[in-house]
Amino acid sequence: MHRTRVRVAEDALDANETIAQTNRADFDRAGVKVVNLMSAPGAGKTTLLERSLGDLGEVRPGVLEGDVQGSMDADRIAHLHVPVTQLNTDPSFGGECHLDANMVRSALPSVPLDEIDLLLVENVGNLVCPAEFKIGEDARVMVCSVTEGEDKPLKYPLMFRTCELVIVNKVDLLEHIDFELERLLENIDTVNPGVATMLTSARTGEGVDAWREWLIAVGSRSPAAV
Amino acid sequence: MHRTRVRVAEDALDANETIAQTNRADFDRAGVKVVNLMSAPGAGKTTLLERSLGDLGEVRPGVLEGDVQGSMDADRIAHLHVPVTQLNTDPSFGGECHLDANMVRSALPSVPLDEIDLLLVENVGNLVCPAEFKIGEDARVMVCSVTEGEDKPLKYPLMFRTCELVIVNKVDLLEHIDFELERLLENIDTVNPGVATMLTSARTGEGVDAWREWLIAVGSRSPAAV
Repeated sequence: MHRTRVRVAEDALDANETIAQTNRADFDRAGVKVVNLMSAPGAGKTTLLERSLGDLGEVRPGVLEGDVQGSMDADRIAHLHVPVTQLNTDPSFGGECHLDANMVRSALPSVPLDEIDLLLVENVGNLVCPAEFKIGEDARVMVCSVTEGEDKPLKYPLMFRTCELVIVNKVDLLEHIDFELERLLENIDTVNPGVATMLTSARTGEGVDAWREWLIAVGSRSPAAV
Repeated sequence: MHRTRVRVAEDALDANETIAQTNRADFDRAGVKVVNLMSAPGAGKTTLLERSLGDLGEVRPGVLEGDVQGSMDADRIAHLHVPVTQLNTDPSFGGECHLDANMVRSALPSVPLDEIDLLLVENVGNLVCPAEFKIGEDARVMVCSVTEGEDKPLKYPLMFRTCELVIVNKVDLLEHIDFELERLLENIDTVNPGVATMLTSARTGEGVDAWREWLIAVGSRSPAAV
């Protein structure tokens, strides 16, 4: 039984890889860079997008919102007059806990690839499975809130290991909690040595300029630089 | 392909239900009540256990710690001189994002059921899949941190709907964040009308007495009352 489950899982990951490459080819053809944005529930992904997407200079952003149910995040982003597409994972048994390449593919007809340069895909809030499924992205970013504790990189290593940027959010709360920022940064570096990190408060705006500049840089990458 | 995946999922849930009932029969025979404790990563499950398990009166607690990797939480609980068993979900493709009945069953030989009255099972930090898999528990409790935002019941309804107690934790941070407690409580009541709620700060100890009393009441339930 166990072996069957593992084989089903491996087959699913192989199929996912193939579809992710197909997505990637479509993105490349359209000249669109794709960022897969992941975090635990409530770490602040949507607020970071709200804070940054309104002013990316020449880079035209779009958003694909992944949620189990509802369209609350998409509604928040729509206020920015940025093209946003909602993708719900609910139809399949109680809701999938992550986006996979096929779900993203199914949403692509609703994404105006010709009108954007940078697609932000906000994944389902979860530190485990989203890291296992590529969707055809150019870069992976994870948002880690200081209220989640210093131990998360050691408990959910794959998520931290597969990102090229880790944003440490809610730093405005540092003075109100028992939390050692240095220890979190050490733990991040232990599982993903040398990975870029940023400190932000989506609430106060602290550090958001660096995030905005990072997005502009990714959205401006030439195809060859990817 | 999609239909195959759904069928595999349904088969897995059916098999899980059968094993959960077998677990439950074993727990009943041993006179042990079981609480399935769930939350997003970093909501404070372990700290709530640290705060409460040292003083449950006549009720003898034990803990089963579910994590993708590592034994950090089990090490914290062990300091309380409470029997604790670590269960890692890692061996199967990159780490399972939840506990299921079979994983719990595989750990039972290491749980001293004869020496405890109440088994706290700390599930993997995740608001989606843990809610889909029964493990043979008497009660489900979820911990929801105020830093996660008011919208989580609407975005992850199954998790909130299947619990008989929702603990709203980290209330010491309320004055430092933009958060409407009333709105969270309304959203909880929308997806699970009448469910019991408690406000706690595992950090300051506020509200922890009520949680301790709840655990004592569950651990003291007669088999007939279950």
